[in-house]
Amino acid sequence: MSAKPSGGILVTGFDPFGGESVNPAYEAVRLLPDRIAGRRVTRLEVPTAFTRGATAVEDAMERERPDIVVCVGQAGGRSAITVERVAINLAEASIPDNDGERPNGTPLRADGDTAYFASLPVKAMVRAINDHGIPAALSYTAGTYVCNALMYTVLYLIDRRFPGVKGGFIHVPFAVGQGVGKPNGTPTMEITTMARALEFAIEAAVGADDDADEIMGTTH
Amino acid sequence: MSAKPSGGILVTGFDPFGGESVNPAYEAVRLLPDRIAGRRVTRLEVPTAFTRGATAVEDAMERERPDIVVCVGQAGGRSAITVERVAINLAEASIPDNDGERPNGTPLRADGDTAYFASLPVKAMVRAINDHGIPAALSYTAGTYVCNALMYTVLYLIDRRFPGVKGGFIHVPFAVGQGVGKPNGTPTMEITTMARALEFAIEAAVGADDDADEIMGTTH
Amino acid sequence: MSAKPSGGILVTGFDPFGGESVNPAYEAVRLLPDRIAGRRVTRLEVPTAFTRGATAVEDAMERERPDIVVCVGQAGGRSAITVERVAINLAEASIPDNDGERPNGTPLRADGDTAYFASLPVKAMVRAINDHGIPAALSYTAGTYVCNALMYTVLYLIDRRFPGVKGGFIHVPFAVGQGVGKPNGTPTMEITTMARALEFAIEAAVGADDDADEIMGTTH
Amino acid sequence: MSAKPSGGILVTGFDPFGGESVNPAYEAVRLLPDRIAGRRVTRLEVPTAFTRGATAVEDAMERERPDIVVCVGQAGGRSAITVERVAINLAEASIPDNDGERPNGTPLRADGDTAYFASLPVKAMVRAINDHGIPAALSYTAGTYVCNALMYTVLYLIDRRFPGVKGGFIHVPFAVGQGVGKPNGTPTMEITTMARALEFAIEAAVGADDDADEIMGTTH
Repeated sequence: MSAKPSGGILVTGFDPFGGESVNPAYEAVRLLPDRIAGRRVTRLEVPTAFTRGATAVEDAMERERPDIVVCVGQAGGRSAITVERVAINLAEASIPDNDGERPNGTPLRADGDTAYFASLPVKAMVRAINDHGIPAALSYTAGTYVCNALMYTVLYLIDRRFPGVKGGFIHVPFAVGQGVGKPNGTPTMEITTMARALEFAIEAAVGADDDADEIMGTTH
Repeated sequence: MSAKPSGGILVTGFDPFGGESVNPAYEAVRLLPDRIAGRRVTRLEVPTAFTRGATAVEDAMERERPDIVVCVGQAGGRSAITVERVAINLAEASIPDNDGERPNGTPLRADGDTAYFASLPVKAMVRAINDHGIPAALSYTAGTYVCNALMYTVLYLIDRRFPGVKGGFIHVPFAVGQGVGKPNGTPTMEITTMARALEFAIEAAVGADDDADEIMGTTH
Repeated sequence: MSAKPSGGILVTGFDPFGGESVNPAYEAVRLLPDRIAGRRVTRLEVPTAFTRGATAVEDAMERERPDIVVCVGQAGGRSAITVERVAINLAEASIPDNDGERPNGTPLRADGDTAYFASLPVKAMVRAINDHGIPAALSYTAGTYVCNALMYTVLYLIDRRFPGVKGGFIHVPFAVGQGVGKPNGTPTMEITTMARALEFAIEAAVGADDDADEIMGTTH
Repeated sequence: MSAKPSGGILVTGFDPFGGESVNPAYEAVRLLPDRIAGRRVTRLEVPTAFTRGATAVEDAMERERPDIVVCVGQAGGRSAITVERVAINLAEASIPDNDGERPNGTPLRADGDTAYFASLPVKAMVRAINDHGIPAALSYTAGTYVCNALMYTVLYLIDRRFPGVKGGFIHVPFAVGQGVGKPNGTPTMEITTMARALEFAIEAAVGADDDADEIMGTTH
């Protein structure tokens, strides 16, 4: 715990799951530049797996000592970039993860809080993406699969061991190519557009001392 | 805290909000029978208001000492009865409540946990509704408006003052009549169908010692 | 052709298809009363099959000499009762019909028009359903499967052999029970609600000399 | 009518309407190259107006004598590129056009057929777009607004005066920037992606002697 924060930014993206041949999350992350707002960016592909995913992000946080951690995952069916506001202490897998693990309603950390809010300035990030003409919104559920698990892990680690780090999660839609053959009405987004959105969001995260005061709630 | 639980069931439903002339939540609640699974049912209409809603449910819990508390609200746009699994300590109102209050990102209880999971057997309730031929699902977000606030309040009170009480929240779709003039694709449900679903869910809540072990997670 | 119209109403509904165990179309039709607006109602279940369906409706039109013919089918995924405005001379089956027939882009009638508009007062019917608090809308496509085929057949027969008859098609959503296990967001409707909507629509069809003049177009 | 076809391709796109500040249709059309599959491409912006739009396309067909006419319009809310299969002889405007005209259920051409099928090889065009990894589908309704009107006009003119010309209509989704502030779930597409899709579709239209024999029907 004595090591000082590096000022760097860690951005993770999942590998493919659920029968898809690509995961736009890491495809977008890999397009990020080496520096954003003057900070060094470390891009990390993490496995879509409860146990190995958590280990991978923990190892990277140890090694890189980032100031900012943004995890990115695919939310097929959503139309906008969604910045997650909360992660819950629950693992319940509607499909097995890439290691065949399939937890059913178990806590992610026995000693963790029921939930953690993202410590990123989530509203400022949403506003920054929208200001650049790309649809973005807050989301109040990251699900109960590995996306939520990774977000929860990051926020738990920040709470226990990395105070002051800004961490959270961003969901991206299906990539355009994934929309072929899916039902009419399935939204998609270009991976290059996702990468631009991630960059705008991270710039906002670097720049914001406090979060935006815009109201972004939802009735349900 | 010396009073003993009554064995009764408290069911609340909100009054209309957001420009709608009815709220199917209380319309369905008022159709519930006086007893479900042998237990007495108290039906309560609560205002769609952060402060008065919380006071109303707290007063009723004090007065009635129910074993089970089920709050019901409208989630316009959802197609199924959704049983909420988690409430978060956040009030952020995209529209003012019925008293004109419009919190922007404030905690509901300064000393509350970040979130509480429903203490109802939520999966058994979902399964019971589906088994009777009515679409139902778990939900992992009750939003940030008065629905989440009421659910959070009930679970906070259970945690602090009413141990052992089973509490939680159920969202219902728009009623059929509310669908007139709304965009194509807006799902609706008959209020009588909602009432039947609530009764099946409450029966399951009375009967279940443990929750069902079916996996009902979601990838996002 | 010498027989005079009977003043009666013929209402058809399809049997189940596409892996569903019920078809709400005929389930709703069978609930219709024996008389609507003083006219005798003949209810007919027709097979979900291009050839036998057409034969069944033609036989019934010969036999019953109805003034009004309303065919009813299921449009799973739609939320409202939709009154179809146009049928096209095209059979293209994304799934085989109940007889295993699977036409691929063939005309329904070699000597038929490219399309026929419904001769029912479709707007008055939509308005009547909405006025009774049930969501309804015009639709400008009945698809390319047996629903469109039956509607086209009726309108072709009216054009060639039964002048003055009011004919057309109404699509109904999935029934409530069909929604169980389908994706979140799949709209459903009670079969009793569908039956009420059909009755209101048919009353309007009996009563209307001209169609309503409300604008009900769509940009796409 | 003695003039010979030029071998050229006419592609039209509408100007903005309905409160939007851009129309992705013409934005995509303007990005098309000067030649596709060796044929000269004429790009034409047409007004979103029943009368002036029809005049504009008729003048261009007279002047350019194209072999292929592809009109492009916006279908906000659709997720895929949709190639329209049929246009109907009906003008019914849910909102006024850009000249304030608002027809209510009138025929587009008093002496026209009830409908015309596109004379383009629509399935080959859909397949070509999908083969390049961009979601595309057939559509069986172009609505009742100016998109349908323009498509109908082109096909009527082909039927009466320009035999052998391949004509039809392609709908594109909202552009990405239009999605900002719209409801969650509103699909969008990059204008550059639309332009690529249009180019693939037009290449297919040039190359196809007959249409693809893939089944692309819809149950409703």
